[in-house]
Amino acid sequence: MSLTNLDLVNECDGFPYYETNPDVYLARVESYYELCISGYDYALGFMLPAVAEVFRGVPHWELDDEEQTLTLTEGNDAASRTAAIDKTLLAVRSTGHFKVLDKWRNEMYPVYGLNKELLFSVERSASPLFGVVTYGVHLTAYVKKNGETWVWIPRRAKTKQTYGGMLDNAVAGGMATGETAYESMVRECGEEASLSEELVRKLVKPVGCITYFSVRGEKAGGETGLLQPEVEYVYDLELPEDVILKPNDDEVEEFYLMSVDQVKTAMAQGEFKPNCALVMIDFFIRHGYLTAENEKDYIEIVQRLHRRFEFPTL
Amino acid sequence: MSLTNLDLVNECDGFPYYETNPDVYLARVESYYELCISGYDYALGFMLPAVAEVFRGVPHWELDDEEQTLTLTEGNDAASRTAAIDKTLLAVRSTGHFKVLDKWRNEMYPVYGLNKELLFSVERSASPLFGVVTYGVHLTAYVKKNGETWVWIPRRAKTKQTYGGMLDNAVAGGMATGETAYESMVRECGEEASLSEELVRKLVKPVGCITYFSVRGEKAGGETGLLQPEVEYVYDLELPEDVILKPNDDEVEEFYLMSVDQVKTAMAQGEFKPNCALVMIDFFIRHGYLTAENEKDYIEIVQRLHRRFEFPTL
Repeated sequence: MSLTNLDLVNECDGFPYYETNPDVYLARVESYYELCISGYDYALGFMLPAVAEVFRGVPHWELDDEEQTLTLTEGNDAASRTAAIDKTLLAVRSTGHFKVLDKWRNEMYPVYGLNKELLFSVERSASPLFGVVTYGVHLTAYVKKNGETWVWIPRRAKTKQTYGGMLDNAVAGGMATGETAYESMVRECGEEASLSEELVRKLVKPVGCITYFSVRGEKAGGETGLLQPEVEYVYDLELPEDVILKPNDDEVEEFYLMSVDQVKTAMAQGEFKPNCALVMIDFFIRHGYLTAENEKDYIEIVQRLHRRFEFPTL
Repeated sequence: MSLTNLDLVNECDGFPYYETNPDVYLARVESYYELCISGYDYALGFMLPAVAEVFRGVPHWELDDEEQTLTLTEGNDAASRTAAIDKTLLAVRSTGHFKVLDKWRNEMYPVYGLNKELLFSVERSASPLFGVVTYGVHLTAYVKKNGETWVWIPRRAKTKQTYGGMLDNAVAGGMATGETAYESMVRECGEEASLSEELVRKLVKPVGCITYFSVRGEKAGGETGLLQPEVEYVYDLELPEDVILKPNDDEVEEFYLMSVDQVKTAMAQGEFKPNCALVMIDFFIRHGYLTAENEKDYIEIVQRLHRRFEFPTL
């Protein structure tokens, strides 16, 4: 197996585009239900009909088969909407109907409106059921030796439920309601890579974000076909040679220090967790390792790492 | 006047999006004609009806009012299509009908198909009439002094026909057929900023591209409302303190060395040529000066600097 960088992008950004393929796009979108809340006339996510069906007749929800919308009718602020959704999800979870809810995380993910206001929060494991935009932080830690770049790459524990044994970014995590990207990153650096807060605050650099629209496959665990538009804030951390990254919990098996070519080879062999491969592609583009001259799909890749969504974002 | 960074993006990326505003998008697209060539079943650009009308009855062209397409019927390779288009454009130019053709450049811009093959080339000044994707290179030259970034910013000559007297990127230029982005950049660095080829090849770094879909306004010169999807390959050049940028021709009045805050202020005051402001925004994002914490439209800005087009790109 040898994957191109565009193959890697396709794996994460699998939802069709209206611009380049309107017929396929419209056929797909017309097959979904839109997640809405009372008083707001726009969609917050796309849902599979089989998922929306589970909410039929449930108090506080209205399923409209004509409009293909599922609307939360309860609550007039973030707290009351969040409580109503949580109550429904706990009941649904107890039935064992959705496999994704078996991995209940007790982490609340924010969902924003067009004015960047928090509309509600939703349990992390349930977010792909609703197809809402989720937010995370990814960091690339690297070292310069004689002008060459070496990247710190962890291998996920084989026992991890999702993408077990695959390669990852040095630090990555989801952003819960109330967290800023920067503080979330600093916290994860300590939790995941044993990096001191002082060092991270001194050296970490925010360098943009990548955005892509995934259709969940087998390896993500749980139901397939669920829709997941994601925003990952991206950070670079150039470390001194004497700082050694090591696991701080049992989620990471080991850290490797890999050359750019070694990382590229591992990516082409499909060894990286898919969205972590995209963070590496973005890193290689920003650092001049992937160029218009050596990557034939350069423009499309840059565009698709920064997809605009149908739904509001922060 | 104080412009936000999103205002600056809106100025360059003024074409509506299907994802966020399908009704407005479709109404706009339905008002245009599509530029096509025989044997290819996709559009290469959007044209104003008043522009397409000029091609009615012209040999080698077929205007279909039902399908709203203007199709080049002559030629079966890039050379023959290019010749046919050039012949038509020279004839149209001689009538004085289009103001944009008064600035005939004798530079040929490439237009690519879905397989990244060159379909034809078109005179630079005519490209906005057809609404085809054009390609350019933009470079940010900067200096680090005591950890602070200073950016080399030229002021365009007041006599320049387009955006005269406005601030610009250190080096910028269009890419003609046959040029690679990198070689085009090296050449422009000598022509526009008196930088030695050796220095540039040693220090210049490709760092991505920005893509946006402009609707031409007054300041661009010529007809307004013409459509211009653009790709700008972006380069960074960190210079030693002792390298001084100076104009090499009469297109640039003067070079300034500006702090990040000075550049931000000038951008907010509308002093930058619009697409050069976008290159600065991209630079500030990649270098950590604009962040999720200090720029409320961070995600939208990053996405819109990398727009996917309706037409093939290289």
